[in-house]
Amino acid sequence: MRCRCGIDVHAHVVPAAFPAYLKGPTPAEWPSMAPAQACHRHVVISGRIYRTVSDRCWDVPRRVADMDEMGLSLQAISPMPELLCYWMDPEPADELLRYINDQMAEMISHSGGRLVGLGAVPLQDMNRAIAELRRIRCDLGFAGVEVGSNINGKPIGSPDFDPFFAVAEELDAAIFVHALRPCSRERLVGPPQLQQVLAYPSDIGLAAASVICSNVLLRRPGLRIAFSHGGGTLGLLLPRLEEGYKVFPALQDSIQQSPTEQARKLYYDALVYDEPTLRHLTSLFGETQVMLGTDYPFAFHDMIPVERVQAAFADEHIRNLLLHKNAKTFLRQPGGVQQ
Amino acid sequence: MRCRCGIDVHAHVVPAAFPAYLKGPTPAEWPSMAPAQACHRHVVISGRIYRTVSDRCWDVPRRVADMDEMGLSLQAISPMPELLCYWMDPEPADELLRYINDQMAEMISHSGGRLVGLGAVPLQDMNRAIAELRRIRCDLGFAGVEVGSNINGKPIGSPDFDPFFAVAEELDAAIFVHALRPCSRERLVGPPQLQQVLAYPSDIGLAAASVICSNVLLRRPGLRIAFSHGGGTLGLLLPRLEEGYKVFPALQDSIQQSPTEQARKLYYDALVYDEPTLRHLTSLFGETQVMLGTDYPFAFHDMIPVERVQAAFADEHIRNLLLHKNAKTFLRQPGGVQQ
Repeated sequence: MRCRCGIDVHAHVVPAAFPAYLKGPTPAEWPSMAPAQACHRHVVISGRIYRTVSDRCWDVPRRVADMDEMGLSLQAISPMPELLCYWMDPEPADELLRYINDQMAEMISHSGGRLVGLGAVPLQDMNRAIAELRRIRCDLGFAGVEVGSNINGKPIGSPDFDPFFAVAEELDAAIFVHALRPCSRERLVGPPQLQQVLAYPSDIGLAAASVICSNVLLRRPGLRIAFSHGGGTLGLLLPRLEEGYKVFPALQDSIQQSPTEQARKLYYDALVYDEPTLRHLTSLFGETQVMLGTDYPFAFHDMIPVERVQAAFADEHIRNLLLHKNAKTFLRQPGGVQQ
Repeated sequence: MRCRCGIDVHAHVVPAAFPAYLKGPTPAEWPSMAPAQACHRHVVISGRIYRTVSDRCWDVPRRVADMDEMGLSLQAISPMPELLCYWMDPEPADELLRYINDQMAEMISHSGGRLVGLGAVPLQDMNRAIAELRRIRCDLGFAGVEVGSNINGKPIGSPDFDPFFAVAEELDAAIFVHALRPCSRERLVGPPQLQQVLAYPSDIGLAAASVICSNVLLRRPGLRIAFSHGGGTLGLLLPRLEEGYKVFPALQDSIQQSPTEQARKLYYDALVYDEPTLRHLTSLFGETQVMLGTDYPFAFHDMIPVERVQAAFADEHIRNLLLHKNAKTFLRQPGGVQQ
């Protein structure tokens, strides 16, 4: 019989519609919806179609049916990253993210316990970000928050985000770091899809490295921070960072604990599409740190996440960790390890 | 008894001195040497100390003694990458690179057969680059050429470099791609050494991906192209690129052969400082594609390259491939496989 125990920490939502902005001139980046083919809508941002999305983005019964099909008992939903709006003026960004968070709460309330929330906060404005973090955690009951690998170019490990991390720790909120507006786009030769395929994992790898190099988890040991796409390129940066930490006095001074030891306290999704790679990363990061992630419902999502873990690992204990136990710990669901 | 069979494809030289530029005003980036502590000199570029280097950079007997110590029978030398001067006006750049190539030829001639050359060509000017490539291959007898992961921001896989690749194939010249002036520096949080540690592997990974995405080896099947630092992040980009190639029609149209199959025709050095990572990459890229690389004689170099391969692999056949056989094929030395 099919396993239905998987917990997916990496899945996105787009609301069915966006409201008009009424508090002033509409910002250019304010999204709107336009009709598309059956069961689809165009997300229009800055006057062009950013992405054509299916009703799986907002239709809860359809999502739950797909979850059944994929063997998922629970899914943590987060906004399509481009909606995070770090580049918008804080006031309309706050307004939009509050709307999106409320829409997510609505979806969760209709899911029969199958969805939990990783909301969005306007990190370009620390006070507003903290206020919205408190609201989604305390009022809406979300498990935590999705943040970008960089905020307008500043990596998420920058000390500038310490006040946010302090409140996330206080609220016991899970933090899911997703690749966003990546650097290195000028290094791609080929179609625009390469941005998702190659630049996203590069940016998330460097984001994870920034969290390690600035010792975030040493200052905030209660935090649970997860990285999308298997941590991107981190797994190959890490051995070199570990060696650099041994060789360069400047790195010994600035990095306060072995980078590998720090990396083994972070969480990662298993979205790497390759069994040997999944085994290698699980061995490197630790079998308690890797969790299912699908990128549902976008074109480039993993439709067989449970099967991939089962194919990669024969050991039932490791399978259960990756399929659901680690996610329960990360999302603070019953059955997780209380740290 | 100690193995002395290793061949190192990744080692750098700096000439003991730089001449004055006499054909016009001295470009700001024209390097000069300044005295430093015993056995060391400062390489001064644009009015500041770029790096303080030891006489191991130019002293052949000292290098050969170190090679004996490291278990190396042969070393392919290439210029310190910052000397590649792609950002300098073509005329002085050409002058400087001809000087450096001549100095390398001098070192090789005094090495008793222990050194071979991977020279430099001014790729910002295709005609000059091709002329110098012919000179170093045909007149100086070099094994090939070192090139940057990007040339003034343009990745080495860009179709703009096709004329260079055509001549390299015609001349049967090995191409060694080294990380240089990497993107993603704005994503680093910490001391400047992180550029070498984190941004270099990110840039080389994207450079290798650019060669795959633009099908260089399908157009030029006779080429032998190697990437520094174990291909950087390529090993973690590749499974996602392979999946993207299956999912996105635009990538199926533009990439003419499975990215993984293409990656298994490229070469990589073994400079990853970690046995499980070396085993993972060797499995991914193929045991015939990985070769010793040390980054000698800079601070961040691998002093036990042979031991690392021996520790990572018990199988004598694989050890021999990585220690010397693959490098013989790449550098066209006796004992290599003629493809």
